[in-house]
Amino acid sequence: MRCRICKGKPVIYMPHHRLALCGEHFTGWFERYVDRTVKEFNMFSEESKVLVAVSGGKDSLALWYVLRKLGYTADGFYIDLGIGDYSEKSTEKVREFADRIGAKLIVEKLSESVATLPEIERFTSREACSVCGLVKRYNFNKVAKEYGYDVLATGHNLDDEASSLLSNVINWNTKYLGRKYPVLEAEEGFVKKVKPLCKLTEKETALYSVLNGIDFLEEECPYSEDANTIFYKQVLNQIEEKFPGTKLRFYLEYLRKVYPVFKEDKEGKITSCKVCGEPSPTEVCPLCRLRERVLNLNLNGA
Amino acid sequence: MRCRICKGKPVIYMPHHRLALCGEHFTGWFERYVDRTVKEFNMFSEESKVLVAVSGGKDSLALWYVLRKLGYTADGFYIDLGIGDYSEKSTEKVREFADRIGAKLIVEKLSESVATLPEIERFTSREACSVCGLVKRYNFNKVAKEYGYDVLATGHNLDDEASSLLSNVINWNTKYLGRKYPVLEAEEGFVKKVKPLCKLTEKETALYSVLNGIDFLEEECPYSEDANTIFYKQVLNQIEEKFPGTKLRFYLEYLRKVYPVFKEDKEGKITSCKVCGEPSPTEVCPLCRLRERVLNLNLNGA
Repeated sequence: MRCRICKGKPVIYMPHHRLALCGEHFTGWFERYVDRTVKEFNMFSEESKVLVAVSGGKDSLALWYVLRKLGYTADGFYIDLGIGDYSEKSTEKVREFADRIGAKLIVEKLSESVATLPEIERFTSREACSVCGLVKRYNFNKVAKEYGYDVLATGHNLDDEASSLLSNVINWNTKYLGRKYPVLEAEEGFVKKVKPLCKLTEKETALYSVLNGIDFLEEECPYSEDANTIFYKQVLNQIEEKFPGTKLRFYLEYLRKVYPVFKEDKEGKITSCKVCGEPSPTEVCPLCRLRERVLNLNLNGA
Repeated sequence: MRCRICKGKPVIYMPHHRLALCGEHFTGWFERYVDRTVKEFNMFSEESKVLVAVSGGKDSLALWYVLRKLGYTADGFYIDLGIGDYSEKSTEKVREFADRIGAKLIVEKLSESVATLPEIERFTSREACSVCGLVKRYNFNKVAKEYGYDVLATGHNLDDEASSLLSNVINWNTKYLGRKYPVLEAEEGFVKKVKPLCKLTEKETALYSVLNGIDFLEEECPYSEDANTIFYKQVLNQIEEKFPGTKLRFYLEYLRKVYPVFKEDKEGKITSCKVCGEPSPTEVCPLCRLRERVLNLNLNGA
């Protein structure tokens, strides 16, 4: 097998695209592919102010890097979750990366608004990954609005999207099937959210990062990924190995044929949290309830 | 763990029902469960004339047995595919079983209407399993109508149904999703078709057969099951092992929430085959085209 463009030694073969490429041509292809995805789904334009949610991992840093290389206005936003050594290293990686690419980075410390993630976890029955998801969704949205960004971009890749789709299909969570789309338009207190890497596999984003010297944190979060997510990623990789190209097709055909069918099946009404004013399904939003709980328990010396 | 009814030693634990039962109580439970399924989906009544498609395997013989035990009028229909030794043994098993339960059995030899399956396979590019499916669907329907049966019952179990559902979901074959239901009403030359074992696993039908001395053919068809079907059954068993109860829920929630959504997405119009008069999507039905092909090739000495 040879690079389709220069006939040189390939670094990757992508069966779903029937495409082998060398390092140089893969980088160019990857960037054009991200740009095509941005345009295909009307994610944003050259005039938009984009806020990229970064964690220090390969996906989010690659996303930030490629968007700026493509000429988009993209700043970074990082939440320091206070997970000891892991968060310290992540913070450092993200700060160094921002310096290297000369980009603006907004940093929020979870400990300043609520408590560190390990502290919160001790005070609630929720699992760490669930708290982390809640905190991130809340802050991404709030900060993007406060700083006047038009759109929030996250680094979710095809493996993330297809595996969560599979898990929700197996359980026929049709509400989820009506919300899973790489673009969620702004509405009722929510900023527009996009996933420009949604058509690229984990392997492809990892390769792009390595080839472009993106110094990401390889260490896994000590809470690790949700065990169910890992399981469904493995199942999907088995299916992909048996029927190459299935992963991408499963996701794209869902977007084309199934999402439109379930689109109306949305969850209940959204109101404004009476404490923080952010959008919420309940009178007091889940984050304010969490904060209240943690503060009360702290006062009671729990 | 103990049998829920008599506290005796259980022969099975069914996590999806949170139910452990001994042999005797499993048999009773199995029969009531089939009857409830028949009634739940309005498959047929005590007045109906039911034709059971039997192969000699555990599922179809168990179905025939249980329907008669429940008091339904159920005769058997068997197609001798002419697959050498395997078909000879199957034919014998089915004949013996019919004698044992004192039931009427209709037997058709594929060699008399077209040719044996191995002969047909040599003459076409279609795979054996695809030819077999075509031949069976055609003859089940034709014979059920000719003999005046109200409904045709097949022995598809939960593993069959859930694995083909998964395979079609992974490929988002939405036309299939609009047709997969345990009851297909009679229409346009098609007899009503039902699957009374659709909520019972392969393990459960096998256990029922063994416990009730049903002498089924254990030997696999030499063409074996379609490799893709086996693969998706394995994938589903992995998911079931990790999340017990998923297989049944995946199928039932599909029936409840997803099938109705895609129901209208049916394939093109059905007409009557100008050769045999049976329902067909094309002017000459696939079986008549196959027969014509085999006859021509035979004449030409191929």
